[in-house]
Amino acid sequence: MPALIAMLTDFGSRDPYVGIMKGVILQRVDASLVDLTHEIPPGDVRRGAFALWQSYRFFPEGTIFLAVVDPGVGASRLPVMVESEGYRFIAPDNGLLTYVLRAESRAWALANPAFQLHMPSATFHGRDIFAPAAAYAALGVPGRAFGPMVPALQRFSLPRWAREGEMLHGEVLHADRFGNLITSLGAFRRDGEQWLLFPWLHEGEEPQYFAPAAVRLPDGQVLPVVRTFDDVPPGAVAALVGSSGMVEIVARRRSAAEVLRLADGAPVTLLSETLAHALEDEKHAEENE
Amino acid sequence: MPALIAMLTDFGSRDPYVGIMKGVILQRVDASLVDLTHEIPPGDVRRGAFALWQSYRFFPEGTIFLAVVDPGVGASRLPVMVESEGYRFIAPDNGLLTYVLRAESRAWALANPAFQLHMPSATFHGRDIFAPAAAYAALGVPGRAFGPMVPALQRFSLPRWAREGEMLHGEVLHADRFGNLITSLGAFRRDGEQWLLFPWLHEGEEPQYFAPAAVRLPDGQVLPVVRTFDDVPPGAVAALVGSSGMVEIVARRRSAAEVLRLADGAPVTLLSETLAHALEDEKHAEENE
Amino acid sequence: MPALIAMLTDFGSRDPYVGIMKGVILQRVDASLVDLTHEIPPGDVRRGAFALWQSYRFFPEGTIFLAVVDPGVGASRLPVMVESEGYRFIAPDNGLLTYVLRAESRAWALANPAFQLHMPSATFHGRDIFAPAAAYAALGVPGRAFGPMVPALQRFSLPRWAREGEMLHGEVLHADRFGNLITSLGAFRRDGEQWLLFPWLHEGEEPQYFAPAAVRLPDGQVLPVVRTFDDVPPGAVAALVGSSGMVEIVARRRSAAEVLRLADGAPVTLLSETLAHALEDEKHAEENE
Repeated sequence: MPALIAMLTDFGSRDPYVGIMKGVILQRVDASLVDLTHEIPPGDVRRGAFALWQSYRFFPEGTIFLAVVDPGVGASRLPVMVESEGYRFIAPDNGLLTYVLRAESRAWALANPAFQLHMPSATFHGRDIFAPAAAYAALGVPGRAFGPMVPALQRFSLPRWAREGEMLHGEVLHADRFGNLITSLGAFRRDGEQWLLFPWLHEGEEPQYFAPAAVRLPDGQVLPVVRTFDDVPPGAVAALVGSSGMVEIVARRRSAAEVLRLADGAPVTLLSETLAHALEDEKHAEENE
Repeated sequence: MPALIAMLTDFGSRDPYVGIMKGVILQRVDASLVDLTHEIPPGDVRRGAFALWQSYRFFPEGTIFLAVVDPGVGASRLPVMVESEGYRFIAPDNGLLTYVLRAESRAWALANPAFQLHMPSATFHGRDIFAPAAAYAALGVPGRAFGPMVPALQRFSLPRWAREGEMLHGEVLHADRFGNLITSLGAFRRDGEQWLLFPWLHEGEEPQYFAPAAVRLPDGQVLPVVRTFDDVPPGAVAALVGSSGMVEIVARRRSAAEVLRLADGAPVTLLSETLAHALEDEKHAEENE
Repeated sequence: MPALIAMLTDFGSRDPYVGIMKGVILQRVDASLVDLTHEIPPGDVRRGAFALWQSYRFFPEGTIFLAVVDPGVGASRLPVMVESEGYRFIAPDNGLLTYVLRAESRAWALANPAFQLHMPSATFHGRDIFAPAAAYAALGVPGRAFGPMVPALQRFSLPRWAREGEMLHGEVLHADRFGNLITSLGAFRRDGEQWLLFPWLHEGEEPQYFAPAAVRLPDGQVLPVVRTFDDVPPGAVAALVGSSGMVEIVARRRSAAEVLRLADGAPVTLLSETLAHALEDEKHAEENE
């Protein structure tokens, strides 16, 4: 079974840039190539980091991830290779690996010209530095042969969150193709019980045990948390725990992004069952007055 | 030669959903993966069914088709595997397989949790149920190991058609990327002679022998049937038998969809040579009056 | 290591046309398939030719390029196979190979029906003629088995250029996904020294030794030539030598195409260092008056 290289870029599909990177790889090694996505919005390192985080754990051990969202190409940011959880990641050191870095991850600079194209350009390191590095990594070249260890990689600041009693505050990250609004609030079941947290806790932060019953939007609208798309009443909007474990705001067979017009970064708040019930009782009381 | 898995979804290319499915497959089996298209309009089961029908017979025997256009994900529709004409199809039972089902097709429910991801989500069965099923099918797991046989699968109603003497009525299915309007009326040559029919006859319906000479649009416009794009006069619109055997309405090096602004489902009528000639004679007579 | 087939078309990703071509190939041979791009604007042979030229030399020797941008499908243009520089190119003879043809290239017509699908359609030679040809070429079928040699292939006229003392005139070819405006003026370093030329010289033309310091746009604006994106001041526009060796007009983390609204074909002029300095001195003098 040949080595597996999974690619993620912001290069799009109109130009042959991704195809060129594949040529560079296949000139050097018989690898199996898989596309994660090449439609990351140009230069959107956070979006690229999220897509990589959503994907990587579904790939076989040993997979090499070649991730290039690189608005600073040709400037001083380092190209690196990272070993982590049995995977290797080849990327610019600009925060793109924020969500996949672990305490035990090890990183090396891609400094050795023997593993680059001759006379690399200043504008296409995907072709000249990152793709050859992926090929040589697939051939078994170890991290230390690429260059010196890099002790600490760049990370961008994680999405904001705050616990306030029966409320957990977060934000909209982005809409996916279906118009589902993915939030920064993650939900994991543990031992049958549901607990909520940012999937990306800052150092020293504790996961928040929390049973979410509703989501409040910036305009005060409160949405129920349901299990599946089909539990959303026709024409309505609701929240559910999406396939990546994040709370998502969805509409039934429509785009919630279009219905609600919430921008990336818009604040959203999870409400506990107690609070959601209290709000509902209040609403009923008002209606009956 | 590794097993071949051909994928068709409405997941698009902006999100890494398709890449994640490939990771799930490659974690389990060394398969060769081919994309049919992932740009089926979200939830458009009919469009997905057409694209699958256009494609499948050009693939080698033994190909596994992994087709996920699944607006009812998480609800009661069954995930299934179908064996038909030497192929296997893995899909939700929601009509997506309408055009590839044959009398002798056999279907099984994908019920066995051993061939699913642990704790499948309610929103991404492509990753949790369908992709693993494709991998295990590629490894040789037989249909009966997945679950009980399903005696009758869902089919949506076939496009309308009607024969009226020298006329055959059908409709526009959709425009392709070039703006060619693909109709529901299929044309097959048999023994040198041309005969026309819906490629998808209802049970008991007979193919219609018909030599089409012209196509009439809803606004009364009559288009000639030509052989190739280059037979369309510059600036004009015409009809031809497209590569899938369906009558298509095309413009020369332009988009017929933009020129004519015909919506999906718009009625179109094929005219026999006799009728087309009669209409032309009438038109000439009017012009000479 | 299986044969490598790299594909470039204008078929897009909405329809399954590219997937169908892959099925046709894989029915015949166990090849490794790579996509260059399928988003060439419909019928834009020049754009396809440029993308092919950008890509091909990064692929391993022996790669088969299957290139289909074919507005004249079904008409009289020949389908051909070309051997050149250790590669094979399978394409319509309509200029698509203009930039990859060399004096020593050899071409054969794809005339032998044994290497086509049975009863080829008049509208989808990608599936019926070109894809099977790629498969049989991968299986080792030699050029002469496909059909007679074709002595001279179609080439379109190369982009205009002119040397005028300290100026080199060219034009904008197109914008890439990032909005970088790629020009027809190429720059190659030789022995440390920079020299400029069209990468595509007409027969008998000499490369132009030229050290470009600035680029003049149609509105008189003069842009500096910098080394990398990060040398462009925030908010500004500049020129640099892009990854394919062409002079490109770029904006910092923005789309130069949107900022400048230059159409494809807009004239641009490279200025020598001497001329650029003179212009700058003049400008300063005016400002100080």
